[in-house]
Amino acid sequence: MAYLQSMPKSETIRLREKHVGAACQLFFRSSPLKIVRGIAQFMYDETGERYLDCINNVAHVGHCHPHVVEAGRNQMSLISTNNRYLHDELVILAERLVKTMPEPLSVCFFVNSGSEANDLALRLARIHTKKKDIITLDHAYHGHLTSMIDVSPYKLNLPGGPEKPEWVHVAPVPDIYRGKYTYPKDSQSEEVLGQKYADEVGKICKEISSKNGGVCAFIAESLQSCGGQIIPPDGYLKSVFEYVREADGICIADEVQVGFGRVGTHMWAFETQDVVPDIVTMGKPMGNGHPVAAVITTPEIAKSFADTGIEYFNTYGGNPVSCAIANAVLDVIEEERLLERAARVGNHLLSRCEKLKHKHRLVGDVRGRGLFVGVELVTDRERRTPATAEAKHIVNRMREEKILISRDGPDSNVLKFKPPMVFSTQDADRLVDTLDRVLSELDDERIPVKNIKLEVLVTPLNEETSSKDLILKSNMKQSVKAM
Amino acid sequence: MAYLQSMPKSETIRLREKHVGAACQLFFRSSPLKIVRGIAQFMYDETGERYLDCINNVAHVGHCHPHVVEAGRNQMSLISTNNRYLHDELVILAERLVKTMPEPLSVCFFVNSGSEANDLALRLARIHTKKKDIITLDHAYHGHLTSMIDVSPYKLNLPGGPEKPEWVHVAPVPDIYRGKYTYPKDSQSEEVLGQKYADEVGKICKEISSKNGGVCAFIAESLQSCGGQIIPPDGYLKSVFEYVREADGICIADEVQVGFGRVGTHMWAFETQDVVPDIVTMGKPMGNGHPVAAVITTPEIAKSFADTGIEYFNTYGGNPVSCAIANAVLDVIEEERLLERAARVGNHLLSRCEKLKHKHRLVGDVRGRGLFVGVELVTDRERRTPATAEAKHIVNRMREEKILISRDGPDSNVLKFKPPMVFSTQDADRLVDTLDRVLSELDDERIPVKNIKLEVLVTPLNEETSSKDLILKSNMKQSVKAM
Repeated sequence: MAYLQSMPKSETIRLREKHVGAACQLFFRSSPLKIVRGIAQFMYDETGERYLDCINNVAHVGHCHPHVVEAGRNQMSLISTNNRYLHDELVILAERLVKTMPEPLSVCFFVNSGSEANDLALRLARIHTKKKDIITLDHAYHGHLTSMIDVSPYKLNLPGGPEKPEWVHVAPVPDIYRGKYTYPKDSQSEEVLGQKYADEVGKICKEISSKNGGVCAFIAESLQSCGGQIIPPDGYLKSVFEYVREADGICIADEVQVGFGRVGTHMWAFETQDVVPDIVTMGKPMGNGHPVAAVITTPEIAKSFADTGIEYFNTYGGNPVSCAIANAVLDVIEEERLLERAARVGNHLLSRCEKLKHKHRLVGDVRGRGLFVGVELVTDRERRTPATAEAKHIVNRMREEKILISRDGPDSNVLKFKPPMVFSTQDADRLVDTLDRVLSELDDERIPVKNIKLEVLVTPLNEETSSKDLILKSNMKQSVKAM
Repeated sequence: MAYLQSMPKSETIRLREKHVGAACQLFFRSSPLKIVRGIAQFMYDETGERYLDCINNVAHVGHCHPHVVEAGRNQMSLISTNNRYLHDELVILAERLVKTMPEPLSVCFFVNSGSEANDLALRLARIHTKKKDIITLDHAYHGHLTSMIDVSPYKLNLPGGPEKPEWVHVAPVPDIYRGKYTYPKDSQSEEVLGQKYADEVGKICKEISSKNGGVCAFIAESLQSCGGQIIPPDGYLKSVFEYVREADGICIADEVQVGFGRVGTHMWAFETQDVVPDIVTMGKPMGNGHPVAAVITTPEIAKSFADTGIEYFNTYGGNPVSCAIANAVLDVIEEERLLERAARVGNHLLSRCEKLKHKHRLVGDVRGRGLFVGVELVTDRERRTPATAEAKHIVNRMREEKILISRDGPDSNVLKFKPPMVFSTQDADRLVDTLDRVLSELDDERIPVKNIKLEVLVTPLNEETSSKDLILKSNMKQSVKAM
């Protein structure tokens, strides 16, 4: 072929700048990584340098898992056509996914991305309830589509972000460290806080009902990811779902980032809250990198959709290759007992991070479930002042140590760990040992943050955080000065 | 693995009915096909029966083309991660696609489906123009997402379909056989008709401008597919684009179904109208079945998007596997000279279909470009009465002859041919010879349409035509009676 598949990094950057929209941003913008190889929890750059991947929740069963690659290769060479033809891989996948769900969640729709899944979920809710008002959580992110940005305060809150439609209602995120109701600052039990947050949704439900006769849907990630690795207090979703259902609304659990066993104890994160949603959406880990996603709902809601008489056709949705790959991912999750592993390694990671809290003044909060862990950094523990600049610095320093982590949350001060599920206790130890060392550098007064090169500080970006960096520049300067 | 990848067809159907939303409809519903294998322009069912595929415009370079399969297999085993990391396949694909575009179309965004591409196109237009009003064509279909149904009269026109938003304006489709202005019934030249249709868009532009200060965008397939294989008259798009630009609007060419050389003479169907759009969207054929799609626009529009400061992140968009596969599709198009082939075989197919018009009273119109061909059936040539029942019957009869065709258009009476580009003149001959024979059966008064089994007649469905069948049942009965 005429094109060389290996060019100097500078040429890759030149072509990217010329021909790819600048709105598509690079991780470590001033010195981006060129990744050419992935194996399990490791990624390799063009020089052969190996990085421990602590953030890729898409490469769920490990980068390039041979069983998944083989399934894709095999099916690609047999047939890949649309779901207007019968195919076993499609129905097998549907049955297997349904088996992981509580009753009555038993009807699947296959799509290509978490965004498409959430768009379809809202469409199903609209058709079923014939209502329009949607309740979403503050800082929530549900996808890149127009319809999803409408319900994503993560985007709506940004300067230059689009206007929130009047039919979207934002409830406070149940963040008991930094949210509206906190623990232990408010000295209240987790259950009480959960109820207080749920009551906020109840209040919105009442307002919508009295105005428009009922709610369409409540949509939330079972554990909020972009919002800063939030673990809702016990009882929260149970009480929220009651309020929403009282208002005739549909409860949508967005499991795109946190599903497929990441929490360790359960296949789906909503199960940790002991609830049964009306619609569940899933994506990212489902195809280990292959574009496949799904919506699972009740026969009743699926029937409302079919009863419109309008066909739902998604060209690639449920094609045999996507389904074969998703089936292979399920195989690996089962055969390598990745839930058990996520629980075991996750607990180890969490307890080791907990110890950092007692050692480093910057560590304000440590939270997580399984291999979904957040470490929130603060410059002042009493006032919980976000340590945004420090978090940026740490992400960069960790990269120098060949460990990839990211940061997120409304103040971009929460270190995020959501590694491939094949992450080991040794990997967790390496991650925490290195983080410990980097935090020590910051503890050490001889290296104050203000002396850290700022041109490095302002460059790295996480998932979906670009413009927050613009807002935070001033905060950052303040927190740097505050030291 | 626990799951058998081969089960009786009855079991596949049982699981599908149980676990897949009924809104996802099967082709030939009463007796669907189970397709297990595809090679080039052929598909095979579970019994080994071979079908000539005359409708799969997704399997563009042929089902399971070995070069494409190999590219996918190879890249899947190396790395597939998101576009926040540099990768050569991404920038090579961007550069190659840009080289096929006229200036100043030079900036790419990669997504997973044509729907995602069109959604992003409208978002870009909104951000760039700061306007809201969209002009679309009647019968147009632009995707399955909420935002796309809003601009798809193909769905909006259906009973039970959602309400058309007030900011969507529908212009008549430039269908010179059945549309508002026709030839030769109106005895006007194609150019005059093109201008009349364009003037309709101009009128809408004027109305929007006087009310809201300017148009956001005009979106149209360069050749309308679901609307019934429509070939706009010469000069149409040129004049439309002038009107839209006078009203400060953006011109979006949807090449999702008709791009990548299908028209034979050009890589993109908009080139046949000698225009340069501001945004081009592409999908289906791009990955030969793999979920990959793209938006290409001008540096100016891309800059407006980047200037919002809001990152555009699409988890799978532009991943190395999707890009490697799309690059391989481009390789095959070039190396196997598929444009030349589409022109040659398409001309042969079209001229052979033309001859059918002189032989069979049912054939009202034959139109096409390259391997994008429509044969419109009528029960009365003078009144151009749609032969909907007959079209249904023919699709079923062709299936019995192991040839897969579909039908579409607002009256579901247009036979659609849009085969993989490796289609040969022999295939075209077999298609037309068989169609000739089936048409002869209908010409023969001894087999009137009313004696054709109706339970077969009402079952087959095309791309996105379900509820039209509901509407058309009465029409069908009428046309059957009319014979």
